[in-house]
Amino acid sequence: MESLIAAKDFSPIEDAETIKNACKGFGTDETALISILANRNEAQRKLVRLAYKEIHHQDLIKQLKSELSGNFERAISHWTMDAAERDATLINEALKKATPDYKVIIEIACTRNSEELLAIKRSYQSLYKHCLEEDVASQTIGDVRKLLVAVISTYKYDGEEFDENVARSEANILHQLIEKKAFNDDEMIRILSTRSKKQLCATFNIIKDLFGTTITKGLSASPKDEYISVLLTTVRCINDSQRYLAKVISHALGDLVNEEQALSRVIVTRAEKDLKEIKDVFAKRNNATIHEIVDRKTWGNYKAFLLALLGKE
Amino acid sequence: MESLIAAKDFSPIEDAETIKNACKGFGTDETALISILANRNEAQRKLVRLAYKEIHHQDLIKQLKSELSGNFERAISHWTMDAAERDATLINEALKKATPDYKVIIEIACTRNSEELLAIKRSYQSLYKHCLEEDVASQTIGDVRKLLVAVISTYKYDGEEFDENVARSEANILHQLIEKKAFNDDEMIRILSTRSKKQLCATFNIIKDLFGTTITKGLSASPKDEYISVLLTTVRCINDSQRYLAKVISHALGDLVNEEQALSRVIVTRAEKDLKEIKDVFAKRNNATIHEIVDRKTWGNYKAFLLALLGKE
Repeated sequence: MESLIAAKDFSPIEDAETIKNACKGFGTDETALISILANRNEAQRKLVRLAYKEIHHQDLIKQLKSELSGNFERAISHWTMDAAERDATLINEALKKATPDYKVIIEIACTRNSEELLAIKRSYQSLYKHCLEEDVASQTIGDVRKLLVAVISTYKYDGEEFDENVARSEANILHQLIEKKAFNDDEMIRILSTRSKKQLCATFNIIKDLFGTTITKGLSASPKDEYISVLLTTVRCINDSQRYLAKVISHALGDLVNEEQALSRVIVTRAEKDLKEIKDVFAKRNNATIHEIVDRKTWGNYKAFLLALLGKE
Repeated sequence: MESLIAAKDFSPIEDAETIKNACKGFGTDETALISILANRNEAQRKLVRLAYKEIHHQDLIKQLKSELSGNFERAISHWTMDAAERDATLINEALKKATPDYKVIIEIACTRNSEELLAIKRSYQSLYKHCLEEDVASQTIGDVRKLLVAVISTYKYDGEEFDENVARSEANILHQLIEKKAFNDDEMIRILSTRSKKQLCATFNIIKDLFGTTITKGLSASPKDEYISVLLTTVRCINDSQRYLAKVISHALGDLVNEEQALSRVIVTRAEKDLKEIKDVFAKRNNATIHEIVDRKTWGNYKAFLLALLGKE
């Protein structure tokens, strides 16, 4: 469930006016921006952005970028985009780093469903005039590339049907590959990148039943190189995305200097999806709520904005 | 351009009646079936199939399959499906053979545009409750699998923009790989499977300009194993799909005992797309038209049906 509290009544034209006024002259009324944007759902924000363009002949995102700065600007700009554009932008940013941020790409590819991933690919092409696959493939190498490209390419089956026999046979294949430490074997990549979430969860459960250990434990036992770390992220995102995302938040809150972007990424991208469940998982596994720690460790408009997206405790 | 001559006025209900009558009692009035179905475009056939289901509570394709047999049944059943369902079925049939018919899979993946390929993937999932990628990946192995899965997975950029510098750099990469006979190198597969058609054609042209030879000649010079043959098909389909398809027809007409399915596949799948251009290419490269050879070498209802789809000479 979403954590966002969207306004019941709203007028895109009034919102566009209020935002314009908040940006007038020196300084910005950030509180006004937050009180509007953090209380509009995706469809509402889209209408506000359209109204803003129509009335003020300017893209709202560009306006926000020129008016604000730092973490707050980044978070509220991402939030104002629609989901597919935001994910396409996040992947593009992840690719542009000196060492691409592989985990962000995997997180997006493995926690969105097929239709969402398709929308991201469409948005990516319209923004960058390239396909997502070619940019990921041309900016990565080796085993990491093999896994990444396979995972982002497949238009997976999202349905409920799965095959017990296939699950049993592939549980054995995966277990044997892990025993042999053949983590980069083509079969490992084939199974993880092409099978449906439902099918893979059945396979993971059989591994646990037959061999008394989880696939993540098997992978974690090895010394972690870059590839194994990407592989682990893949398995975790498929196996239990909410638990994975709660961990990302937990890790980010423990190291805000380096990981702040991960914190706002997960809050911004999941606020209209399953942030409520992620908050519950977090609370069960930590001695505090996300709310409490964000309240204690962040400040200013950035804090106000994140708390608004986190919704009620 | 399409070769098909579609009826201007038609009634789906009348068509459904005529087809039902043609199938009544012993024997079938194949001429009636051809005169209707071979003169309806995709949207019209869809309506006829819907009307047939509504009135006679039976799927038209199943009716045709139970009524007819051999080449003619296969061709007219495929024709009556919509394009995405037909391509999904063709790929599934190709995969089920003792040795999968890789060339059919490549032909479909590389001559359809991104939206068409996406529609095929959707249709495949709805027919088989699997994704296309997982079936291709689980039923192939080695280098052939690497190339096939990469080619069918990517949601390619279909736009007009391409990058001269990338084309130059990748022309060099491809040329060097061919010189070294490193045909299965990851870079070869990356470039062919992720770059847009426009980008790849620019790259192929630079290879010709810089090195005075085409990429297909470079590949053909090697002894043809299964992988190289799939690789060549990929390059040919991307480089000039109409020329490739004209060659498939020419090859099939020369060996109808073994290749009849290729003949009807190309005619059926391209009749509403670019069969006119394929016929022109064929006529320029052979001493006869497709029409003439089909007329001479095939017979009966099958011949009548193919000639109807081929349209005017």
